Amino acid sequence: MTTATLTLKDQFPGLAGGWHYLDTAATAQKPQAVIDATVNALGRDYATVHRGVYARSADMTLAFEAARRRTAAFVNGAEDEIVFTRGATEAINLVAQTWGVENLEAGDRVLLSTLEHHSNIVPWQMLGERTGVEIDVCPLTADGRIDLDAAERMLTPAHKLVALAHVSNVLGSVLDVRRAADLAHGVSARLLVDGCQAAPRIALDVQAMDCDFYVFSAHKLYGPTGVGVLWARKDILDAMPPWHGGGAMIDRVTFEKTTYAPAPQRFEAGTPMIVEVLGMARAMDWLTDVGLDRAERHERELAAKLREELGKRNDVTLFGPADSVGIVSFALDGVHPHDLGTILDEEGVAIRAGHHCAQPLMDHLGVPATARASFGLYNDDSDIEALLKGIERTRRIFG
Amino acid sequence: MTTATLTLKDQFPGLAGGWHYLDTAATAQKPQAVIDATVNALGRDYATVHRGVYARSADMTLAFEAARRRTAAFVNGAEDEIVFTRGATEAINLVAQTWGVENLEAGDRVLLSTLEHHSNIVPWQMLGERTGVEIDVCPLTADGRIDLDAAERMLTPAHKLVALAHVSNVLGSVLDVRRAADLAHGVSARLLVDGCQAAPRIALDVQAMDCDFYVFSAHKLYGPTGVGVLWARKDILDAMPPWHGGGAMIDRVTFEKTTYAPAPQRFEAGTPMIVEVLGMARAMDWLTDVGLDRAERHERELAAKLREELGKRNDVTLFGPADSVGIVSFALDGVHPHDLGTILDEEGVAIRAGHHCAQPLMDHLGVPATARASFGLYNDDSDIEALLKGIERTRRIFG
Repeated sequence: MTTATLTLKDQFPGLAGGWHYLDTAATAQKPQAVIDATVNALGRDYATVHRGVYARSADMTLAFEAARRRTAAFVNGAEDEIVFTRGATEAINLVAQTWGVENLEAGDRVLLSTLEHHSNIVPWQMLGERTGVEIDVCPLTADGRIDLDAAERMLTPAHKLVALAHVSNVLGSVLDVRRAADLAHGVSARLLVDGCQAAPRIALDVQAMDCDFYVFSAHKLYGPTGVGVLWARKDILDAMPPWHGGGAMIDRVTFEKTTYAPAPQRFEAGTPMIVEVLGMARAMDWLTDVGLDRAERHERELAAKLREELGKRNDVTLFGPADSVGIVSFALDGVHPHDLGTILDEEGVAIRAGHHCAQPLMDHLGVPATARASFGLYNDDSDIEALLKGIERTRRIFG
Repeated sequence: MTTATLTLKDQFPGLAGGWHYLDTAATAQKPQAVIDATVNALGRDYATVHRGVYARSADMTLAFEAARRRTAAFVNGAEDEIVFTRGATEAINLVAQTWGVENLEAGDRVLLSTLEHHSNIVPWQMLGERTGVEIDVCPLTADGRIDLDAAERMLTPAHKLVALAHVSNVLGSVLDVRRAADLAHGVSARLLVDGCQAAPRIALDVQAMDCDFYVFSAHKLYGPTGVGVLWARKDILDAMPPWHGGGAMIDRVTFEKTTYAPAPQRFEAGTPMIVEVLGMARAMDWLTDVGLDRAERHERELAAKLREELGKRNDVTLFGPADSVGIVSFALDGVHPHDLGTILDEEGVAIRAGHHCAQPLMDHLGVPATARASFGLYNDDSDIEALLKGIERTRRIFG
């Protein structure tokens, strides 16, 4: 193995003590820069936004709206196409319960895939219960990609939405978003992309991808918990009805009739996640400073190295394609993933063991759970070595 | 004026430099204890909850669920009656879009009041559009309280919900929640209480108040942005259908059929506001250490002092009752509240000027906006003196 090109560990207080953190697909550790931004926002600079007549609040409002522009630039979208949400899950539910309820009806169909996270399945099932919309499931290729050839055959004019993960949170497989968009648009369907695992690993360009909705969470992007993003094409967002009623999303309230603010404010009822939005913008700065191209290369290299090493063992089953990015799921013969995770924890190695909120994919793989190692920009070869050593120790314990 | 009993300013980095912050009803500054808790949660202790097999995640899960018990204790409710939301606005929308949609239908009525915040008006209007439910508006007494005598006359068996503010965010008037609950229950309606302005100022006891839903935001409670609380009576919460679909709120997901987790997890889809929940619990500790009884006394004293001083001027109109808590709205003859706010800002005094997300109340008062000074535990007589001095300077400028 060669030495990984990035050495960022010392910027992460959560990694002090030599912890081998391999669960970034669940949530990323935070660089000191994001923590510092949070401290300033909670203390020295703290005020509400959009309302105060005093300078501190005006400054905070400027910072908040600058964070919206920062976010727009991060996805190559426009400022008024960015809705701040609690996270990706809320963003998908927002689309389902506003755009979905407004535009879909019984007889319409939604195309998902076998590898979707529950957050990109259950909101559409709930929409189905409310509207009668039905769900189709695009199968995977043998190596664990969304099979877009199959999608092409499955799509019909009844399909109004295609909703797919950009990067699988279990397999690390990467979707060709542009082709998915072309296929969806070929039947006049919209494309929603769950970008939770892509946003920290791949440079995003919603124009080039030509998708209609793109969602992700900040906490997987080296940013705070409690905040995420819905990007939606301006004409679509403008036509979406409000979801949560409250302050800041209204134009004028009377008991006789209430009128609503334009998008994106229409979808941001109440005092927003002020501190979290600023922290997210700082995380985007940090990630952009590191470089998304470097990030993707780093994540591909580490995943490839781990797959190569695990592939040398005859007691390991690897899931997902050879060219996965940042995420490697596997099984160790005769050892339940939870037991593996527990023993690795004793070695200072943190992996995830479970269904990864993707039970239909587990059913497809024929396992109740997988072990999953997922990388962040702070990981390097030493983390892979520690994982391999821990697997070897587990092997000795289980025989 | 006597000296206020609490001197806590130096615990608040946001108040450095002698800032006279009188906009706590919009959002509270954060004590160092909450900032420190946030730094630890984002750094040293950071991990996801409910999923990891490693010790750090197990520890974080324990801390997160301890925060739920902390929150339950704060309102004297039970742990499984606490749903963490993005804030009070989301909590009210959650109730409207789950309990409301499930239990209310055309012909049913909801009773609100003239002084409600938009967040306790618009969700019910949106529910009305979806279900045909109609809204009645309880008037105010001459001094600006919700007129419960009028409510008693208005309530009928068609009323299924009464939703009222515990403390008015404009007038500081305090609701007799227990009487409101008795009146609501007398016609078999449920009572929802918007506690945003009460939670930081009055010791809460949902058992003694006998309400059915109680909501508040952390950021007004000296805690983080991006988090709030829905407390709901266990039997009601258990019967409520899910709202957002996603991870953590499910029992088992297949494309054929998905089953849901019990409450409160059923209402917490996706990775929660981990850091924010911990910060909120720390704010509750801090506030409890100060003492809610002392807090209420402090907030009543400061409001009374300011009303007394403003009452000596013949160019000031005071809104709201004499015994308001923590919040004083007023008008200075011939000066628009925004102009007053701007001049005060030059004096280092921050007040709010506007409709305070309560346009129907502004219509009732016959003004487009009020000036509002609102207190926190860090305020003292020096803040009132600075405000009075600034008002005097404004008077000289405007003649």
